[in-house]
Amino acid sequence: MSSKKVREWIDQKKDKIIDDLVEFLKIPSVSTDPKYSGDIMNAVKFLSSHCKAIGLDTKVIESDDGYPLVYAEKIVDPNKKTILFYGHYDVQPPDPLDEWESPPFSPSIRDGNIYARGATDDKGQLFIHLKAVEYLLESNDLQTNVKFIFEGEEESGGETIEAFVIQDQGKLLACDAVFISDSAMYAPGYPSVVYGLRGMVYTEIRVSGPSNDLHSGVFGGPVVNPANALALIIGKFIDEESGKVTIPNFYEEVKDIEEWERKEWAQLPFDEKKYKESIGVPELAGGEKDYSILERIWARPTCDVNGIFGGYQGVGGKTIIPAWAGAKVSMRLVPWQTPENIFNYFEHYVRYLAPVGVNVDVELLSVARPVLINLEGEIFRLAENAIEEVWGRKPVKVREGGTIPIVSTFFETLGVPILLVGFGLPDDGLHSPNEKFSLNQLFKGIETVSEFLVAVGNL
Amino acid sequence: MSSKKVREWIDQKKDKIIDDLVEFLKIPSVSTDPKYSGDIMNAVKFLSSHCKAIGLDTKVIESDDGYPLVYAEKIVDPNKKTILFYGHYDVQPPDPLDEWESPPFSPSIRDGNIYARGATDDKGQLFIHLKAVEYLLESNDLQTNVKFIFEGEEESGGETIEAFVIQDQGKLLACDAVFISDSAMYAPGYPSVVYGLRGMVYTEIRVSGPSNDLHSGVFGGPVVNPANALALIIGKFIDEESGKVTIPNFYEEVKDIEEWERKEWAQLPFDEKKYKESIGVPELAGGEKDYSILERIWARPTCDVNGIFGGYQGVGGKTIIPAWAGAKVSMRLVPWQTPENIFNYFEHYVRYLAPVGVNVDVELLSVARPVLINLEGEIFRLAENAIEEVWGRKPVKVREGGTIPIVSTFFETLGVPILLVGFGLPDDGLHSPNEKFSLNQLFKGIETVSEFLVAVGNL
Repeated sequence: MSSKKVREWIDQKKDKIIDDLVEFLKIPSVSTDPKYSGDIMNAVKFLSSHCKAIGLDTKVIESDDGYPLVYAEKIVDPNKKTILFYGHYDVQPPDPLDEWESPPFSPSIRDGNIYARGATDDKGQLFIHLKAVEYLLESNDLQTNVKFIFEGEEESGGETIEAFVIQDQGKLLACDAVFISDSAMYAPGYPSVVYGLRGMVYTEIRVSGPSNDLHSGVFGGPVVNPANALALIIGKFIDEESGKVTIPNFYEEVKDIEEWERKEWAQLPFDEKKYKESIGVPELAGGEKDYSILERIWARPTCDVNGIFGGYQGVGGKTIIPAWAGAKVSMRLVPWQTPENIFNYFEHYVRYLAPVGVNVDVELLSVARPVLINLEGEIFRLAENAIEEVWGRKPVKVREGGTIPIVSTFFETLGVPILLVGFGLPDDGLHSPNEKFSLNQLFKGIETVSEFLVAVGNL
Repeated sequence: MSSKKVREWIDQKKDKIIDDLVEFLKIPSVSTDPKYSGDIMNAVKFLSSHCKAIGLDTKVIESDDGYPLVYAEKIVDPNKKTILFYGHYDVQPPDPLDEWESPPFSPSIRDGNIYARGATDDKGQLFIHLKAVEYLLESNDLQTNVKFIFEGEEESGGETIEAFVIQDQGKLLACDAVFISDSAMYAPGYPSVVYGLRGMVYTEIRVSGPSNDLHSGVFGGPVVNPANALALIIGKFIDEESGKVTIPNFYEEVKDIEEWERKEWAQLPFDEKKYKESIGVPELAGGEKDYSILERIWARPTCDVNGIFGGYQGVGGKTIIPAWAGAKVSMRLVPWQTPENIFNYFEHYVRYLAPVGVNVDVELLSVARPVLINLEGEIFRLAENAIEEVWGRKPVKVREGGTIPIVSTFFETLGVPILLVGFGLPDDGLHSPNEKFSLNQLFKGIETVSEFLVAVGNL
């Protein structure tokens, strides 16, 4: 049993592992705002140095108009199987800053968790793969070829890696399976394999009226107020009775949930009261009434306002008709909705809903295809076994509500199984203030990946 | 005829009048931003010195937590009529600074206009009253008691004068009519008397959902999105077909437009094409379809979003369900809507519209009562005659869409006619860059007020 050996190694290296992760988390590598581009380069430097330091052949793949990819590999034997690990070194913006108990880029360890932006999404989780391989290299037990590809645009569209994977056509990235840890376990103690992801269409709507802000007394009445008009448009996106999105043809391509899925999910523990409390909402009254909570999140599409803005936002009042108002609106897609069709339907619908008297622009900011992975074959079984060995139970088969755009590209380009095995926990607060990652999950994750690689090496 | 004499006086004094006004306009007495409070005090000093210099008994009325009032009077004979002039020495902020052709606080004379922040609103216009009285004092023709009350918070809530007028209960401010020049003529060559102002209820709505921003993938579906919910609520405020505000009982207290008003306003020149171009809107499609443009602005209530905000507002995308979203929403009221009732109806309506799954707060930020002045009696006729003599035509009787909160307080407290006779022009750009005041309007204004005071003195 290698399991005991890897646990000992982790025990000895604990402080060093945490120290390294802290250094990584200190870098505010926010990809959605150009002002952080210097920090992005610092994250690239950190990550490539780290890969070299643990003994991987490493190179930075520059991009003309995007952020670099970091590629690293250890080919132990061309006849052996190859696992490609994917992760992302960029993070979400940290706002609202005043809601963080410790600053987002000054990692803080409390109650067995490390708190920082990117702790679980995805710096902490990609560290699992690196540390597992570091262990196997140090102990001379690496019998599987490993490749790593890290991108810096996961939170901002992922165009660079998308283009690279398509251009590469499985040459540099040739492998027998892709292993990704960028998700959470279903629940503590419930190791999970994710076989479905939602896709996305992310848009920005801008409603324009007068050329300048107008005095709301002198002009109020005949002038159509762009902020009222924006609300009028957005307010119609969801049917109040059914909870369904009202965009014409929106559900046309949606694949029905299968019977085995309904059953598997219905058996999962789900404490609605606790769930509501954990996120602080009075009722789970959103989405389609005909579907269970998990079904709504995992297998049904949505239309959410991610941001809304226009006019006066300061203290007190300012009596203006704002010249314009806008909103970020994104739709989560499920198999087999196509982003192109959905954006097309959406744009037409927004224009149709816009009242006379204002102009409307609809911009497409990013897209991602939904994914559904077939859970069969040898490598999936090995992963399932490694998980069972470390966690004491077989993984549950779940989908996720989130989006990992690159997964669908791997899926289509490499034609190999994709193992989405996340070690986060549901309350990690990714994309929110006080994002965290459990150190216990980190260490057991390293153990799991090490077990898996050893098993693949024995094939 | 005194008219010739006052014109001669103006002709001789022209340069001095302009020089004095320039000195006054140089003071950046912005009341909405505390950093200008020293300049506010400089404006108080300038104004009180100036009142003394022209022979008025003057005092500064300090305020505990607001800016001082300047009071000045000349009681020529207790048996004569008394006119109270109101004006304000504070000005709007000058931003956006880069759109000014000459700096806002370096008055510049071009094409017969004086350009500066406050030129028309209200320093130039209150100067009309002072110069008319200065002329009558110099020529020993003042046969009317005059009082002046100047405030420094007209652009920031007017709380000090409000409290003072209510506390004074018509003692210091006892008069036979109030004369205010803080508005514009309907059009060049169309001297105007404003007899109606809209009131206001200014509110802030806040819709709260989850205790933190949530990942829109991980939680999107069952969670009611507060920004979508806010849009749902606001989107229902105005009926799309009729353009009417949908708040129950909203129109209950609205006084119908009278036949003579419809006729008077229908005869006013109104170039819809030019109007649309001047504010840059494609159509004047807002408000109640059954009313003309002027009727919608002057005599019908509105419900406008002045600002809307929530979630991510930066560059690119952030995939969150925002924890909350809010909006500044104000309603312009017409006679005889009462702010208390309207806020009550509004608050109930917002709560009624809010979907299950979010919490709603509605805060009242400020109110002002609408005003409708009865245009009858001797003093109005004298003003009408003075205007006709100077401008060659009787004033048109108009209302205004804006709100002058102090007018309703004078109205209720003093119980005397209020003459809203503005000498600005519609293109003066008050509250905007390149605010100006026409020197011709200034001089004819002085003539008009002098004529009026002479006529009142002969009563």
